[in-house]
Parts: sequence; structure tokens; C-alpha cells
Amino acid sequence: MSQLDAVLDRIDRDLDQSLDRLFALLRIQSVSTDPAYAAQCRAAAEHVAADLKSIGFATEVRPTDGHPVVVGKSEGAKSPANGSLPHVLFYGHYDVQPVDPLELWTAPPFEPRIDTLPDGRKIIVARGACDDKGQAMTFIEACRAFKAVTGALPLPITVMIEGEEECGSKNLFGFVRDNADEFKLDLALVCDTGMWDATTPSITTSLRGLVYEEVKLTCADRDLHSGLFGGAAQNPIRVLSKILAAMHDDQGRVTIPGFYDGVKDLPPTIKADLAGLGLTAEKFLGQVGLKVPAGEKDYMLIEQITTRPTAEINGIIGGYTGEGAKTVLPGKASAKVSFRLVGQQDPKKIREAFRAFVKARLPVDCTVEFANFADSGALQLDFDNPALDKARTALAQEWGKKAVTVGAGGSIPIVGDFKSVLGMDSLMVGFALDDDRVHSPNEKFDLTSFHKGTRSWARILAALAA
Amino acid sequence: MSQLDAVLDRIDRDLDQSLDRLFALLRIQSVSTDPAYAAQCRAAAEHVAADLKSIGFATEVRPTDGHPVVVGKSEGAKSPANGSLPHVLFYGHYDVQPVDPLELWTAPPFEPRIDTLPDGRKIIVARGACDDKGQAMTFIEACRAFKAVTGALPLPITVMIEGEEECGSKNLFGFVRDNADEFKLDLALVCDTGMWDATTPSITTSLRGLVYEEVKLTCADRDLHSGLFGGAAQNPIRVLSKILAAMHDDQGRVTIPGFYDGVKDLPPTIKADLAGLGLTAEKFLGQVGLKVPAGEKDYMLIEQITTRPTAEINGIIGGYTGEGAKTVLPGKASAKVSFRLVGQQDPKKIREAFRAFVKARLPVDCTVEFANFADSGALQLDFDNPALDKARTALAQEWGKKAVTVGAGGSIPIVGDFKSVLGMDSLMVGFALDDDRVHSPNEKFDLTSFHKGTRSWARILAALAA
Repeated sequence: MSQLDAVLDRIDRDLDQSLDRLFALLRIQSVSTDPAYAAQCRAAAEHVAADLKSIGFATEVRPTDGHPVVVGKSEGAKSPANGSLPHVLFYGHYDVQPVDPLELWTAPPFEPRIDTLPDGRKIIVARGACDDKGQAMTFIEACRAFKAVTGALPLPITVMIEGEEECGSKNLFGFVRDNADEFKLDLALVCDTGMWDATTPSITTSLRGLVYEEVKLTCADRDLHSGLFGGAAQNPIRVLSKILAAMHDDQGRVTIPGFYDGVKDLPPTIKADLAGLGLTAEKFLGQVGLKVPAGEKDYMLIEQITTRPTAEINGIIGGYTGEGAKTVLPGKASAKVSFRLVGQQDPKKIREAFRAFVKARLPVDCTVEFANFADSGALQLDFDNPALDKARTALAQEWGKKAVTVGAGGSIPIVGDFKSVLGMDSLMVGFALDDDRVHSPNEKFDLTSFHKGTRSWARILAALAA
Repeated sequence: MSQLDAVLDRIDRDLDQSLDRLFALLRIQSVSTDPAYAAQCRAAAEHVAADLKSIGFATEVRPTDGHPVVVGKSEGAKSPANGSLPHVLFYGHYDVQPVDPLELWTAPPFEPRIDTLPDGRKIIVARGACDDKGQAMTFIEACRAFKAVTGALPLPITVMIEGEEECGSKNLFGFVRDNADEFKLDLALVCDTGMWDATTPSITTSLRGLVYEEVKLTCADRDLHSGLFGGAAQNPIRVLSKILAAMHDDQGRVTIPGFYDGVKDLPPTIKADLAGLGLTAEKFLGQVGLKVPAGEKDYMLIEQITTRPTAEINGIIGGYTGEGAKTVLPGKASAKVSFRLVGQQDPKKIREAFRAFVKARLPVDCTVEFANFADSGALQLDFDNPALDKARTALAQEWGKKAVTVGAGGSIPIVGDFKSVLGMDSLMVGFALDDDRVHSPNEKFDLTSFHKGTRSWARILAALAA
């Protein structure tokens, strides 16, 4: 039996104890947004620190202006013997979302239990079962098995488990910046993402960036009566409509000059993998009552939502919006417009290009004010990163199915910080499923996700150390 | 001295007494929208009725479901001796707007007084001084002078003074319909409009009609997260912007097929008169901070605001409109769109053409609901109507300056009813000025407007009887 097989065997045999440990953590009511739970958050941090210490990590519960960060460093992480091995940073969080509306839970949210779905799947039900206690514990249990079987971890590992992810990680950014020397390692491992489906493992290799702008147009210096001024006074809603309507052409492409600078098509093999997933409009859009992808016609639906940039109008308001009729000709109108960025799109250039696009379309008698609410670039794990191939192979071996690399449509702020502040890439692997009810009542994590997730991390750690 | 000269001379000599009578009416707090003033409204109606009776009208205070209508009929209006003379219906209203904010009045609003402006103009200051007690009394005082000098009115007159104009004339429409035989006369005289400027008399020969539509678009059956669905889910704000942006071409023309059916250019002489008024963008738009007319480029500013049809967006709303950023991709968006109609434009055809225009631009995955809030055609006094020429001549004689015929950009609902229910045209002559602060604190009416307005009606009545 190889060393890895012994570790996997240990994981299988230790599953009940693994669940006991997970349940102990799930019982701690570490709701980070509510100050009433501050002591419970502290208790969760100390619980995690003690657990890491029990498997040989040198641990600290490090203070911040909010809830503490647990930091654990594996024995001899800096020793010369580890010189050729990558030193990885594992990121997770011990805090959870609030539980309300409590009445929708079928059992108390902090009394974890195993339940069985009608289709036979066994699930762990509790607040945090998936996000992120369950996911984080897959990694810690993999480490525990290595330690038990081999007496050591296969490569140097620093663990960072924070307590404010569910309220915006607002103190973590400063913590990372202030301790950059300590956390600037070779690769971050992040376990806060999902599987493609219950049988298909997935690695998230890109996160779209976000530029979010507000456009406020002013024409007349007051609201006017449309009977008196209608026909002669410039109407800011009309101006705004013309600008917004011009942002996309008939092919769904964004028309802002320079918008696609830095955007590359996917490598053919990655594209083929995505095509092989067969994501249909019926499946994806059907769940919200839609049928036809509205994005760039030359690209697959899955590309439109993950690896292609977008321009969306998130809100618009102007004039009379109450019941019935009012013959007003408004003086002002405004819209919120956001852009999801990919590849090397430069958020500052996108912002400036959008503002120039608006200004170029302003008629006389119309002035504009802008406000910027987000300005972050996309994250892209280099497809040539050797860790990616190793993780894909490891996941395929565990799940008996090729692992897909996908892009996530939204952003994970701390991953952006790892890149921008520390210059460190992140390998995002997770075992959440679409039906996990994350942030909702009756949150669950499949027992298979927990068990095979732990085995997956063991395989990935072994592969990264090879 | 001709009979008319004698009447005019009498008006001049009686001016102080005319003002006393106007002031007596202005002291009655006939605010129609506030139920607390119901008794005062009743008192104003009875005051007007008594006054009309004193100059020979057979008067009644006729009940409605709201405030009563004063109806006065001149002696022998139906007598065969009057057979060849037109029988006119004079319309006015005795109710006034509320006075708040009271603290902005420099003197109590129901204590009328004569004041002098810095430029030397004498003004009557009180709520209702212009709208419409002052204007209505110019007509009644002209009748009084005729009666005093000649013992009779020069032609048969029915007077209708209502008490709910400031709250939408909501009972008058039914009253007119129910008594159509009584009020379907030869011509309505309406004194609720203004002069072109302090020295230029004006006749309003057209009122624009109004079609007011609400458009509600629905795409997804809920609001979506733009990170997850952005790029693939149809965005109703984007669809709505494209539709609204397509409503006008680069020349400011409305692009809805058939929109201009029934719209004629003005007769050259009328157009020349309007051009002669020299209404500049600086003067008209400058007052609200604008510079350049935004309407049809081939037409003068004064045409854009009075005699040309328009399409305006009165309101729009969709998605997130609060402070800051929310990455929502909304399921719904809606707009209020209105059309000012002229000439023979058919409101029902315009409404249907607009709806077809919207439907033709709906992508898959977008449904629309419409609501209609107004549906009235334009009113146009035939330029060949002999009353128009007579009134123009009479006004020119009084003011020493050609009277202009103008269109009003907005609508006066009862005038539409006179046309649609009774088939009766209206001659709209009034003496309000732009600075009369109608509906606002410190409402005023120029003493010249009151005095020469009374003389103008005397001349018009004489001309109509000739």
C-alpha cells in the first residue's frame, strides 16, 4: 500500500470521528455579523486553533479590530528539508451567516445531524455545514490523516482561518497587508467554491472583476411640466436611454471602445471541456423563467456567465415613478452600470472608457456626474500553472471523472487581495453543490462532499508535494 | 359716441367699483380641495349667483356631488329676436388653490390689496386674483357695463361658473353630459389662459391632446445576481432603454410609424405671426437652465412647445436605485411615456402604434404589460371660424397691437369635454401674465389685465353680436 493509499484508508476508517469533530465545530454559534455572538466567534477560533495544534500546527489566535484570525503553521515549514517543496497557504473561515428566518429550519441550526434525502443522499444539516466549516474541515481532516499515517505533512502548510468572511472580511485585508512577509507563500488553496455537479469535480480558475459606476444626468435645473416644456426641453431619461441602448450591439457585444482589450479566448482544450459540460439554456436560464442567452452570440452560455466580460445596467431611475400619471419632464435621471471583467482588462481603463463613452453622447444642456463603487480586476490562474494540472489529476483519480476548470461569475474579495497585495495565485477547489442552501435555512453539505472532499485534499497535497 | 364707446367709458368710470366687487369675491376662502372649506365654496357660488342676478341673469346654484355650479342665463336668451345672434357659453371657476406654504405670503392671501411693482405696474394681490376669479370677473364686469349702458346684453349668454376646477372638475363632466341640451350652444368663451406678454393679447386656438402610457417589462421571474447571471439573462432595463432610445431620430422626430398622421403644418400667415413673436431659446429655456431646443429641428421653438406633437418619457424605474452599489440584474423595469397630440392625431391610433412599436422590439424572454392613463385628442379651433377673426380684431383695437393665435402645450379638460360631448368649439382668451404666480404664494393679477381685460370682453361681445 502506497503512502497515499494508507492516508486515504485512514480517512475512510476515521470518518465517524471526523464527523464528530465537524459537529463539535458546527455547534458553536459563530455568527460574525451580530455582536451578541462575539464570544461564540472567539470560542470557534480557539476551538479551531486547538484542533490544529492537536495535529502538530504551531497555532495562534491573532487579534484584529474584529473577530480574531486563526493562524497555524506546520512543523518545520521553513526547514531546509522543505526547500524544494511549495509552501501553501490554506484559507477558510470559521464564521457563519445568521440563521433567520429561524422558523423555516426543520431542526435547530446549531444542532448538526445526518439526514437522508429522498434520493438516498446522506447530508449533514446545520448552519455552516457547507459554508465554510464543512469545507474547511475537509482540508484539516486530510492534514490529520497525513499526520497520523506518516507523522508529518507532505509539504509546508500555513493555515489561515478567519472569522469575518460573512461580514465582508473587513479586517482581514489589513491583516494580510500588515503581515505580507508571513503570508506571501507559493500558492493559496481556497475551499469556498463548488462542484460542477454531484459527480463532477471542479477547479475555479478565474473570478470576474467588477467595475461599478453610477451615472447621474442633469438637464433642466428643476422638474418641468411636460405640457409647457415638452418638445423643447432636453429630457435626461431620453439621453440616458440612448446612452445605455448604445452600449451593446445586435450581437450582444459591448461597444465601448477598448472594452475587449486584454480579453483572450479560452485555450481550445479548456473551451472543449466547457462545451462537454453541456450547460443548456433550458437548465440554467429555465430556473428563472428565461429561455435564450442574451449575451455575446459567438460564445457559449457557460462562457457568457463565467469567462466573458459583461456590461449590465443594475438600476435606473428618473421622473415620476409612482402610481398613475404625472406629466413631469424631469430634470435628472440616473443609472447604475457595472462591468464584469476577465483576463487582463484594466478596471481603471474600463472605467475611463465608459465615462468617455457617456460624455461623447451628451447633448448640449446635459451634464453628468459619475460615482465609482467598485474597481477590481479579474483573477485568472495561469492555465500553465503546474499546480493546476496536479490538482486536476488528483481530483480525477478521486471522482473517476475529469475535473473541469471553470470561471466564477462573481468575485471572492480575499482572493483578489492575495493576488494584488501578496502577488500569490489561488487554487480554488471546493465541494459545495447547487442545492446546499448556503446562507439559507436548512443549509446542508453532502456526506459524500465531506468524505470525498477530504480524500480529494489528501490526493492534492500528495500531488503538490510530488 | 357709439354704443361700444359708451360701454367702454362706463367700464373706465366704474373701475373702482369693479375692484370692490372683485375684492368681495376674493375674500371668500373657496379652496375646493379641502373639505374644511366646503361652506366657503358654497358662499362663493351664492355670491357669484347673486352678482349675476343683479345684472339681469336668471341664475341658479346647481348641485353636484361636489361643489355646486353657478348657471346664469341672460334675459330672453332664447327669444326669437336673438335668432340670428350666436348664443355663447362663458366658462369660469370660483374655486381657488390652497394657500400653503402660508409663510411665503407677504400679506394674508384672502385680504386682497393693490400693490405696486418696482417697475411701476399696479397689481391685485390675493389667492385667486388671477386664477380664476380675476379673469372671470373681467367677463362679468363687461356684461355689467353693457347692461348699465344699453339695458341689455348684445347677444344671448349663458354663464357657467364651477367650483371644482382646482381639483380636476370631477363632477362638471357629468353635469355637462347630463345637461347637454342646455349647454350645447354656439361657442364657448373660456377665460383661463394668458397674454403672450404684458402688451400682446393672445387667443389660444389649440390645446395639445394627451396619450399617457405605462410600459412594464418583465424578463426573469425574480431579481438575479449579476455575478451569476450577468451576460446571459435578458436585462429588462437594457430592453427598455433600447425601445425608448428608438422613439426619436437624430432630427428630433418621433419614429413611431403613423405618429404624424393627421398633423398639418400651420398656415403660412399663422406661422409668420408666431415667428414674429421672436421667442428665443435664451428667453424660454434660459429660465430653467437650458439653451438649445431639443425638439424637431425643422420647427421653431414656439412650434415645438405648442403646435407640434411630442413623445416624452415622464418616468423610468428598474433594479437597484438606492445609495451605493448592488449587483442585481433586475427582473422588471418600467417607464411612463406620454404623447402630446395636435391636429387630427387619433389618440387611440397613437396608443396602438406605440404599443406595436414596443412589441416589435421585445426580444425573446421579455413580456410587456401596458396601462393607459390618458387618451384625449387635441383641440383645434378652426382658423376659418369667424369668431376668431372678430376676436382678433377686437383685441387689436383694445391693445393697439396685433393679437397672436397660439397653441397651449397642455390641456384644459373641460374644453375637451365641450368639444367631445357637446360638439362645441371654444374661444380661449385670457389676460394672465407669466409672472402671475398662479398656484403659488403671492398670486397677483395686473390691474391693467383686469381693466383692459374687461374692455377687451366688451369689444369681443360687441364684435360677436355684429
